[in-house]
Amino acid sequence: MKLRETVGLNIRNLRNSKGLSQEQLALAADLDRSYISEIELAKFSASIDVLERIAHALEVAPKELFNERG
Amino acid sequence: MKLRETVGLNIRNLRNSKGLSQEQLALAADLDRSYISEIELAKFSASIDVLERIAHALEVAPKELFNERG
Repeated sequence: MKLRETVGLNIRNLRNSKGLSQEQLALAADLDRSYISEIELAKFSASIDVLERIAHALEVAPKELFNERG
Repeated sequence: MKLRETVGLNIRNLRNSKGLSQEQLALAADLDRSYISEIELAKFSASIDVLERIAHALEVAPKELFNERG
């Protein structure tokens, strides 16, 4: 699995575990909803700055987005 | 400290701990040396795909690049 796929799945799972919609996460991270969708689906290779905003909005340490999946 | 600064310092420290020059890391990751320099100095917000190549070249898990600094 490519790293961007791992990150996308982690973001989706963290977002769902907090009961947030893509719209709500987008608003909290000051990003477009379509951009959140593209990152979750690994269509786009997000930058560090964007990951920082998403991690902050999800209230997790940035490295949590990179946890490898079992 | 912004996340890109943390990542840049981690890359520099890991690279030095392995005795690699910027040129050697650039060659191993198939990136330009100037690009490695910019990432280490946090002048540029690298993408997930680029971080994946750097982590692979440094032989570390990608999340190691995001370790927070004490």
